[in-house]
Amino acid sequence: MPLDHGVVGVPSAPYERSWTSKDSLLYAVGVGAGLGDPLQELAFTTENSAGVRQRALPTFAVLAAQAPTGRKLGDFDPAMLVHAEQHFELHRELPAAGSVRTTSRVTGIYDKGSGALVATEAHAVDAASGEPMITSRSSVFIRGEGGFGGDRGPREEWAEPGRAPDHVVTYATRPEQALLYRLSGDRNPLHADPVFAGRAGFPRPILHGLCTYGVTGRALLHALAGSDPARFTSMSGRFSSPVLPGESLTVSIWVDGATALFRTAKDDGTVVIDRGRAAFTP
Amino acid sequence: MPLDHGVVGVPSAPYERSWTSKDSLLYAVGVGAGLGDPLQELAFTTENSAGVRQRALPTFAVLAAQAPTGRKLGDFDPAMLVHAEQHFELHRELPAAGSVRTTSRVTGIYDKGSGALVATEAHAVDAASGEPMITSRSSVFIRGEGGFGGDRGPREEWAEPGRAPDHVVTYATRPEQALLYRLSGDRNPLHADPVFAGRAGFPRPILHGLCTYGVTGRALLHALAGSDPARFTSMSGRFSSPVLPGESLTVSIWVDGATALFRTAKDDGTVVIDRGRAAFTP
Repeated sequence: MPLDHGVVGVPSAPYERSWTSKDSLLYAVGVGAGLGDPLQELAFTTENSAGVRQRALPTFAVLAAQAPTGRKLGDFDPAMLVHAEQHFELHRELPAAGSVRTTSRVTGIYDKGSGALVATEAHAVDAASGEPMITSRSSVFIRGEGGFGGDRGPREEWAEPGRAPDHVVTYATRPEQALLYRLSGDRNPLHADPVFAGRAGFPRPILHGLCTYGVTGRALLHALAGSDPARFTSMSGRFSSPVLPGESLTVSIWVDGATALFRTAKDDGTVVIDRGRAAFTP
Repeated sequence: MPLDHGVVGVPSAPYERSWTSKDSLLYAVGVGAGLGDPLQELAFTTENSAGVRQRALPTFAVLAAQAPTGRKLGDFDPAMLVHAEQHFELHRELPAAGSVRTTSRVTGIYDKGSGALVATEAHAVDAASGEPMITSRSSVFIRGEGGFGGDRGPREEWAEPGRAPDHVVTYATRPEQALLYRLSGDRNPLHADPVFAGRAGFPRPILHGLCTYGVTGRALLHALAGSDPARFTSMSGRFSSPVLPGESLTVSIWVDGATALFRTAKDDGTVVIDRGRAAFTP
């Protein structure tokens, strides 16, 4: 059964989501903060270290701004859906504990032939003050739902600069990383259950794309923004290949003023987040 | 100022504590379930794996049965207090999510010369049915509070059997283990903040004693009870030396029918849990 193309543009009701200091800490260790050297990144992993104020990792904004869209997308096999792209922009620093009210809508359903690319946008405001906090844009690719004669959608130019990266940051992940990351909310058994992962065609459970995204965000935060979340403005990237928990991730970063291009790859060179862009306060 | 010896025997008001499926999962990964091999111990780390029912690790009972005692112990420097011994007994299997009502009391204050040993006992019943679920006994050693001319307290015999252990199980811990374990409730900065740990005389933050205890409990569960929490009856041990996160723990187990003696040591042979006893259904 095809997707319901009438869903495009229909705004959701405002959806309120709160998070606690503990939620921020759990997310931080879930994306590897303190991994290997627990004395680093104490601002993200502890709330009571001497002289250290707790901060939220910028990428936690993607989870904070998650909200149901206004209308059901139609009937399709959820096993055919993969997270394709993720962008977010912070209009102010995300607090370590807070509450947002989010409105989201599907902004486009694009025809990629072998499948449909469904793009969604969410706007989250501080629940108390009403001030804009997060704009989040993401897209999912649904295999088998293309070929409806629609537009292929916009394609943004992205070319690797013809020079060595300005920063190259490698972070390990743990074999058990997904068991930890999933406690921040995404309980899809694809990331934990070998039986389910096998049915989806993977040799073993794969890491959450948004965990890879969060690990990458830590590299950008430390390399570009001096580890200060208030200087981290935006980040976007395209998920291009799955990661198995335990694989190392190397983020290559090319800086141009207050923006940067980046790419995340595994040890064997496979690119897992492609076409990355970030903005920050130098 | 001395301890208030009048506290002995004064029962607390019943204290109710609930835990969720997520609390059990977080505790399990906090004590290393799935560490290194995420496909093991799925019953403790996931709630939605095909054909696997979620269970709580038996040692989670110690946290579930924690409750304030009936009266303040007196004024003393909390930095002088260390966890000395921990025992628990399960009267039925701990559910993955549940609620208990706990009454606790100080059962003795013993004079060890250099300090006082304060022993506490807690009885937790299922909050819904009133049926006994957990008996927990623990003691803390408070340096500088001895020498009051009191009884030295009972001393149970424990001798290493004159033969090789029946089981020897080694589990790694992660350098970041305490950052994860602390999210199950014990936020003492001794386990995360290098400044605080330095003031307490440690080169860096040390692992929670109850994390070491939980790792040890996993070894006992798998070696003695066929990984079945319903067959795990009781466990006790004395904390004899601190562990740094990242150190490996080797549990040596001597079985005798439905009971066992055990000891947990670091790679350099330092014993960290001594005088261990466990009971199980063979």
